[in-house]
Order: sequence, then C-alpha cells, then structure tokens
Amino acid sequence: MPVYLDHNATTPLDARVREAMLPYLGEIYGNPASPHRFGRATRMAVDEARERVAALVGAAPQQVVFTGCGTEANNLALLGAAAHLPPGPVAVSRIEHPSVLEPARRLEARGRPVLWLEVDGEGRVRPESLDAALAQGARLVSVMLANNETGVIQDVAALARRAREAGAVVHTDAVQAAGKIPVDFPALGVHLLTLSAHKLHGPQGVGALVRDRALELEPLLVGGGQEEGLRSGTLNVAGIVGFGTAAALAADELATRAARMRALRERLERGLARLDGVRILAAGAERLPNTVMAGVAGVESETLLMALDRAGYAVSSGSACHTGKTEPSHVLAAMGVPPELALGSIRVSVGKDTTEADVDGFLAALAGALDSLRRGAVGA
Amino acid sequence: MPVYLDHNATTPLDARVREAMLPYLGEIYGNPASPHRFGRATRMAVDEARERVAALVGAAPQQVVFTGCGTEANNLALLGAAAHLPPGPVAVSRIEHPSVLEPARRLEARGRPVLWLEVDGEGRVRPESLDAALAQGARLVSVMLANNETGVIQDVAALARRAREAGAVVHTDAVQAAGKIPVDFPALGVHLLTLSAHKLHGPQGVGALVRDRALELEPLLVGGGQEEGLRSGTLNVAGIVGFGTAAALAADELATRAARMRALRERLERGLARLDGVRILAAGAERLPNTVMAGVAGVESETLLMALDRAGYAVSSGSACHTGKTEPSHVLAAMGVPPELALGSIRVSVGKDTTEADVDGFLAALAGALDSLRRGAVGA
Repeated sequence: MPVYLDHNATTPLDARVREAMLPYLGEIYGNPASPHRFGRATRMAVDEARERVAALVGAAPQQVVFTGCGTEANNLALLGAAAHLPPGPVAVSRIEHPSVLEPARRLEARGRPVLWLEVDGEGRVRPESLDAALAQGARLVSVMLANNETGVIQDVAALARRAREAGAVVHTDAVQAAGKIPVDFPALGVHLLTLSAHKLHGPQGVGALVRDRALELEPLLVGGGQEEGLRSGTLNVAGIVGFGTAAALAADELATRAARMRALRERLERGLARLDGVRILAAGAERLPNTVMAGVAGVESETLLMALDRAGYAVSSGSACHTGKTEPSHVLAAMGVPPELALGSIRVSVGKDTTEADVDGFLAALAGALDSLRRGAVGA
Repeated sequence: MPVYLDHNATTPLDARVREAMLPYLGEIYGNPASPHRFGRATRMAVDEARERVAALVGAAPQQVVFTGCGTEANNLALLGAAAHLPPGPVAVSRIEHPSVLEPARRLEARGRPVLWLEVDGEGRVRPESLDAALAQGARLVSVMLANNETGVIQDVAALARRAREAGAVVHTDAVQAAGKIPVDFPALGVHLLTLSAHKLHGPQGVGALVRDRALELEPLLVGGGQEEGLRSGTLNVAGIVGFGTAAALAADELATRAARMRALRERLERGLARLDGVRILAAGAERLPNTVMAGVAGVESETLLMALDRAGYAVSSGSACHTGKTEPSHVLAAMGVPPELALGSIRVSVGKDTTEADVDGFLAALAGALDSLRRGAVGA
C-alpha cells in the first residue's frame, strides 16, 4: 500500500465530505440561479455551504465569493483589487505561490511596479522590507499566511496592521493554513483571504475569496452575474457543498488534527536528525504542524523522489506546481538556502490520517534511498 | 414527483457519469502535477478524459483546455484572443450568452469597439451584418452555435468561412449545442469553441475551450502553468473525469437522444398550438431538438413560472442567468418579438430522460395555469 505524504499538493477527499456531496451528484440537481424548486433546493445547499466556509475563518457568509480554485481566488484578489486602486506599486513577498507571483508580474507588465518583500533565513517576511515598500507608496500588499513549501507561518496580523496604517489593501493566501492552524479573518485584519477546498480534504475545483465588502473588486469572469457579479459562471453545487462540509469538519477537528500532525512531524524530524547530511529548513520559524522541508546534501531531489516513489512513499520537492524543473525553488532561494542543500530538498507533508507507521516506514525508505544513491554517486 | 423541463439551465448528472467519478472522489487521489504514482494515476485519468472531450467535437486532445466552467471558457476565448490581436473591432451577435456579451463590453471599455451582429425575426444571424462588420475590420467574431433561449442553430460554418477569408479569428459558444446536435470543430472552421460539462449530463464546475493551436491566447488565470500555461490551477480530476464520460456518452447516444427529444418537442409544440394566445418563437428556424421558446399573451412569465412550479413543472423564462429581471430577454428583443409576447415567454427544454407523460402533464398544467391566470386578470 503506497503511503501519501504530499498533503500540501492535494488531500484525499474525506469520506464524510463525499457522503455530503453524493445527493448533489444524484437526486438533487438544478441551477442555483433558477427560481423554481430545483433551483431553490440547490441554492439552499449553496447558502449553507457558504455559512460553513465563512465560519471556518470567522467571517460572514456574504463575504465569501466562491471560485473554481485557489489560483482563481488569488488572481481575483490581486488583479481585481488593483483594478480599483490608484496608481502605485504592489508589494508581494518573494515566497508567494505562483498564483500570486504571476498576477503580480502581470500587474508589473501593465505598468504597476512590484516591490518584492524579502524574507530572512528562516523564511519569515522581514517587517522592514514591508515598511520600505509602504514608504514607497505600496497600494496593495500580498503575504501568505503559511508557505506551501516550508510551512513557515507569517505574522500576517502584524504586517497587515502596518499596511493598513499606511492605507494599503492587504491580501493573504491562506490556502495552506486553513484546516491546519486557526485562521481568523477579522483578527488578521486583511481585506482579502484565499481558501481552497482540496487542501483541507474537500474536492478539487472549488476555492473561495473572503473579502471586506467595503473593498471594490473587478471580477475576472463576467457574464451571468453570479456571486454578486464578482464571479460569473454556474455554481458548482456538489463541489461547494463538499467545500462547506470539509470546512465544518476542519473547524470542528482543528485542535485534534493539529496535535496529531504535530506529533507526527516531531517524530519525523527526530528521525531526519539522525540521518547524515539532512537539515530541516526553516527549523527556527513557527511552522504548520504538518510540513517538513528538509535539505539533503549530495543527492538531487528528483532522483530521490523517484527512489522514494518506487519504495512506495509519495513526497514532493518544493510545490507541486514546480515539478519537472531543476532549479532550486524560489522559496528556498529567497531564504538563502545553499544550492547544494536546496537542490536535494524534499517536502514531507503529513495529513490528518497519517500514522506513526507511515512516518517510520518513510524514514527507513529514505535512509535506504540515501544510502544507495550516495553509494552510487561515489561509485560514479 | 416534480418534472424538470429546464435542461438548458443545467442537466441532472447521468448515473453512469457519477459511477465513473466515484473512484476519483475516493480511493484515487492526487495532484496531476505531482510526479509520483498518486500524481500519475490522476494524470492518466485526465488524459483519457481529454481524449473523450476532444472526440466529441472531432478535435485532438492537445486542443482541449479545461476550465472551471463554460463562462470561464467564453471569457478566455474573447479576452484571451483579443489580447494578441492588432487593434480593431470585435463582432458579436446580439443574442450571445452574457458570458460572451460581458467580455465583449469589457473589450469595448478597454478601447476595442464592438460591432453587434443583427439577427432576423427567426433569431438567425444576418450574414450581411457579418459582412459589414468584416468590412469595418472586425478582428474577432463570436457567434454561438445554438441559442440557449430559442434553441436556434446558426450556420456557423458559413459565417466562419466569411470571417476567415477576411482574416478574422472566430469563436463559437457550443455549450448548448454539444450533446444535442453533431458538433465538428474542424468542419465548423472556427478557431475557438466553448463546451460545458453540466449541460450534457456531466458535473457542474468544468468547462473546456477547444482551440486552434496556431492561435495565440493570453491566459486569464496565471500561476502554476497548468494546461500548457493557458489555465493555471490544480485540475479538478473528478470533474474532468465526469466531463470525459459525459462527452463519450453524448457522442455514443447522440442520434437516439436527439430523435427522442425531437419527438417530445414536436408533441409539445402540437399541444402548445392548441392553446389560445401561445406562439412558438423562431418556429421557422432550424432549432435544437430539445428547446421550445413560446410567447404567451396576456400573462407575465414570472407569474406563469411560479404557477407551473406549484403544479410541479420546472421551466424557465429566457436564460437562467436572467431570472429576477422583468425586461424582455435580450435575445427576444433582438428578434423583434413584440413585448406583449416576450414578457410572457416561457422556455421548455426537455432532456434525454423526459417522457411523453411529462410533456402531456406539462401541457395540462399550462392550460390550467393560463386559464386561472387569465380569468384572474379579467376579474382584476
């Protein structure tokens, strides 16, 4: 039985989420925009899911805009907010997900400068870098709540306070944080926050942007005017119901899931510490309870991943979106991780159902793979 | 048991599609971008679905870009193609879906004039209107294959030939046509074609843009670079698998479904012809086998719809996206339908599983509703 340790790439659908979705993949159908009883039944289901997603982050249901994925929500946040802001730069951390970095580059191509916020050696955004950007008139700031590669948690509340005082709009990508640590939209003090269902045991194909309703947003997708005109397109009822259920379960079980994952992560880290030439990256920073990024000397990530895959263990190097490339990840590069460690880095992300046996088996497989790869390298 | 006669708004998920999706909502999971076995299993499923969706329209798999809905595909077609075209107008028919009309208006706001193609009294685009637009230098033409409200089928192949000869890029929205009439991407001669899964008994939340690969497109959603960079965002594996299965079934069963629906439509139209003050709109045009738009004198659509809903019959007035408004639909207005008929219009769209009893019951309910509404109106 292969072991999945790549939960930051996507999570298996929770069986309870699947049960909640099934009626909407069967006897209950309709377009939520239709006024008749078929439409009403699906509209009610969407309304309930909206409440549950909002509740996960302490927001009101009317603040939730459903999208087709987290990437769409991140694009809507940056491009949609910038469209209504006066000229001036945007400030984006160097370690954001590509779905934030690329919209920022698009804004740059359209004439809005991007100020890149630097991180320290532990992957934490440097507050003085934000201050400098605000002093240069940054209108929009985007800093993720937790990094997908390292798991490093940013002090978004403190950064948002500085940015708001300077009059900037603040977005945070909470895709990796939600379901793993408490996420409180009002307490974070941001204007915009991104979520994705499939990172918290919900279905792929649904995301959400939570918004301060006082902020003007230009929609990316226009047409029928769904989601108060902010996201046209027929609502994905089953997917949204699944997102709502996944959000409710994540909220209910947050403490137990987090404690369980943290214990597994610590077990994993103790095991990794016993291996030669392996270093936990960003070990000094506050991190997600489920994520370990380890730099491994003397091997190439892709080779190591394939050896682990053959042994039945699925992990990642950097984010799933980057696979296939051989450069060090932009996150590790921004942290100043030496290339020899970064090029051999692997990310292990446990899930709510990962077991101690999974972790122990992985450690043994890794030790074996390193041994044979390094011996091969010596022989070569 | 309420009867659903609103298949142009959305269709129930086919039980066989659901069966095909279930493994991907359960034991098979992964991010198709991941190189390990979990990623490969989902990537293979996506590849197979891509072949099936392509086959439905006679295209190659590499021509299919999966999106989050038909609206997104229409937005990508217009905004994405226009971004790479020299200055010059776009030509769009007056009867397009809002997900084409609104991107056209957005292009207009950005400085690219829109030339509106007129239709005749039967809802067919006037070729001379296209010729005039091409003479004015139209760079991009969008004409739907079949209209969602009236079911009128356009001669897209002929229109595309004229447009191509003039050097214009051609898009067709085939969302309502696919699964009801043959759709052949190469024979139509268009550069871009939009599909949506939930209109052909597939899941909500998945669409596709089929494209001529020689055409440059600017993506709407940027980030991880999925779909050859044309649509970033984690792929919705279960939804895409469902789309593939729905497409394969639609292709296999097209002739029998169409014949069955056509017989029901004719039965329905014979019944409607016996009612006072009811006129089939666009009756003289070639139409989808499943769609009837009827103008009804002396009543308001919304009141009639609610009466029919109480009687257990779900139909629509105009497209689902317009519900709640009381103006005549833009489609009927463009056709020059007299307001007194347009304001009382109802759309009946049968499906592959609709029965004669459903149609007969609907006709009886309509006769009853008209009788009591008109008597009420006389008494008022």
